[in-house]
Amino acid sequence: MPAATPAPITVALLGGGTVGSQVARLLTESAPDLAARVGAPLQLIGVAVRDASRPRPGVPADLLTDDAAGLAARGADIVVEVMGGIEPARSLILSAMAAGSSVITANKALLAADGATLYRAAADNGVDLYFEASVAGAIPLLRPLRESLAGDRVVKVLGIVNGTTNFILSKMESEGADYAVALAEAQALGYAEADPTADVGGHDAAAKAAILAELAFHTRVTTDDVSCEGITGVTAADVEAARDMGFVIKLLAVAERTADGAGVIVRVHPAMVPNDHPLASVRDAFNAVFVEAESAGEMMFYGRGAGGAPTASAVLGDVVAAARNRVSGGRGPTESVYAALGVRSIDEARTRYYVNLDVADRPGVLAAIAQAFADNGVSIQVVRQDGHGDDAGLIVRTHLATEGALRRTVDNLRTLDAVKSVVGVMRVEGEAGP
Amino acid sequence: MPAATPAPITVALLGGGTVGSQVARLLTESAPDLAARVGAPLQLIGVAVRDASRPRPGVPADLLTDDAAGLAARGADIVVEVMGGIEPARSLILSAMAAGSSVITANKALLAADGATLYRAAADNGVDLYFEASVAGAIPLLRPLRESLAGDRVVKVLGIVNGTTNFILSKMESEGADYAVALAEAQALGYAEADPTADVGGHDAAAKAAILAELAFHTRVTTDDVSCEGITGVTAADVEAARDMGFVIKLLAVAERTADGAGVIVRVHPAMVPNDHPLASVRDAFNAVFVEAESAGEMMFYGRGAGGAPTASAVLGDVVAAARNRVSGGRGPTESVYAALGVRSIDEARTRYYVNLDVADRPGVLAAIAQAFADNGVSIQVVRQDGHGDDAGLIVRTHLATEGALRRTVDNLRTLDAVKSVVGVMRVEGEAGP
Repeated sequence: MPAATPAPITVALLGGGTVGSQVARLLTESAPDLAARVGAPLQLIGVAVRDASRPRPGVPADLLTDDAAGLAARGADIVVEVMGGIEPARSLILSAMAAGSSVITANKALLAADGATLYRAAADNGVDLYFEASVAGAIPLLRPLRESLAGDRVVKVLGIVNGTTNFILSKMESEGADYAVALAEAQALGYAEADPTADVGGHDAAAKAAILAELAFHTRVTTDDVSCEGITGVTAADVEAARDMGFVIKLLAVAERTADGAGVIVRVHPAMVPNDHPLASVRDAFNAVFVEAESAGEMMFYGRGAGGAPTASAVLGDVVAAARNRVSGGRGPTESVYAALGVRSIDEARTRYYVNLDVADRPGVLAAIAQAFADNGVSIQVVRQDGHGDDAGLIVRTHLATEGALRRTVDNLRTLDAVKSVVGVMRVEGEAGP
Repeated sequence: MPAATPAPITVALLGGGTVGSQVARLLTESAPDLAARVGAPLQLIGVAVRDASRPRPGVPADLLTDDAAGLAARGADIVVEVMGGIEPARSLILSAMAAGSSVITANKALLAADGATLYRAAADNGVDLYFEASVAGAIPLLRPLRESLAGDRVVKVLGIVNGTTNFILSKMESEGADYAVALAEAQALGYAEADPTADVGGHDAAAKAAILAELAFHTRVTTDDVSCEGITGVTAADVEAARDMGFVIKLLAVAERTADGAGVIVRVHPAMVPNDHPLASVRDAFNAVFVEAESAGEMMFYGRGAGGAPTASAVLGDVVAAARNRVSGGRGPTESVYAALGVRSIDEARTRYYVNLDVADRPGVLAAIAQAFADNGVSIQVVRQDGHGDDAGLIVRTHLATEGALRRTVDNLRTLDAVKSVVGVMRVEGEAGP
């Protein structure tokens, strides 16, 4: 129980960039609210930055230090790590935990690469580890997965967890723009970095997919377990074909239990999503995660996935939770990987596919193509023929098939005289049925 | 820390209806998962039902009892109340807390009428009170509001929290049906009760609005504080006018901070929502709650708002949280009403309005009508004239105005020769700007 004049809960902040400066600001501006919610005041005791001589608005100069290692090891009640990257972030977090500090981190790359080490250190030292801000920024998502759904069994997670790629795909859709044009626009507006590889290659989403999969399926999943394909191959023709069929293209992070229930498959790739699916209307830089659980059914969590203030809001929520635990003597959730499902290859994933073919315009073409699908055990859901003569095209949407069967089908299609070229192949997600 | 062979966490269940039987089923079927997540097995020690002689599938007969008072007072670690209604639920919960039990309840009516008594008893007895299932069924919503957003300041909450009315309004929209026809269809499908008053009158949504407002604004709010208008006055003409303008009609639960920051207004009423707002695509019996916070920005939580299994999923999440606290010695969040904002009347709410008028078809009509708005300080955003002769109609959408100013405007309009009748007046929510 808090005493009449409770001792302050001390907070050390590692990182003074976009997120760190917003965390510092909120700790100051919202101090009375935070104290009321925690049952004790929060006291910022230091902010580790690269250059402590450069003033930061809202942060008292005497709190700035360039000695991150010294600040991390000072034994604050709570250490907030918002530097990013694997090292020195990992060493600093481990040093903070060894000194008895609970740790809040937004570091998706570290968690996805080596979360187990952080969890173990938290358990060994009896401290909390929270990381709400690491996935989907401001959206309260990990706490619901870790705690609210703790009595249910998650079946599948489908997430739009990278704002940059969602912005680019939204532009391609709304303006009919090519990928390169939409990327340039995203860069001009500050939604994409000069080197956009981490975003457009799907790597940022893959780290988040690993974190989501571990929490949803109580199974250790790291970035290396995630099959990853980015959006650089998505064409204006794919976007147009999707629209004509009533679909939109999204970069999805997917984690799902295998049909036998004993495995989990985690993958990131562009996918067509039907217009009436809740994820379809998630546009621009917004994020959303769609969760399907056995008892709860379908849920979606939607909001801002990035930005200083939104991310800081998520960090502060975790700070309040860890601080309350200091006051009440409680403990946050620990690592939950008891299920230890096998992580399976994307080759075992069964999804629907869209296949866009440039074909010859003569009788018998459809029969030959349908036969190629049938020969490989891939069942066709919809076929649409477009154009005539040199512009003749055929779009096929399949029922559930494995990647292997689809790949063999496409290889066969390429050998057919009737098929001039395979224009596009993409997975389809978010449809009900077989 | 849990011992090597931890003692079971005992659970007593008050209520064996739709939700209760699903809770009992999940406690049994998911026992290994739940034990792994809690760190100790959960043991169901009794289920209080009205008629203990009637067998319930999945519940061992020797656990059934008609002595709810005896079961509540037996000192189980956790008592789950899913009976509903004010009494005897309140007395049973208080008796359980006095016996040292943490309480999980789905009882929105009781929480909205007298949550303070439950919170006080929980604090006095050092036990937990969780109630995720009381609002928006399976959607993890209250835990994010109570915990994830604990470092942020909520500005506004807009919720579709009643599945019955959302189903009826969706039918009116998709089929052009009258209210009475859509209600009958909802009743035939089991989405509405024979006496639908609690749903269509907005009272169920009002109880949920009170619970949401209290958590969002750290201010005690009860059902009596909620201004409440149902959907019985919504006409097919309103739905059609909304569609023509690019809007849909939803029954919204709204809680918002007043412009001066010192008050909160809580209201339930039908409102027009623009098609591109995330709430607009929430159809049929689904629920969703849209939250706007100062730092996090806009968020939405979407999912199933009712049903035995979804509600049981939310209850089980709370059971796991309370059980973990028993194992770790922690405590769940307590009542947070420190902000103590004044609850203000809906008359102070500033919203946009839609006004649908049947007018005479002659020059000068628009000028006279525009003058009536101007005289009362209500600024017009859009005017649309439809039809000619006897069918001449005028639809006005306003900028932000108070209920009082709008009411005076409508009173003035009724005195004008040019206005044959005021066909519809409704609030507009979810638009940005002044």
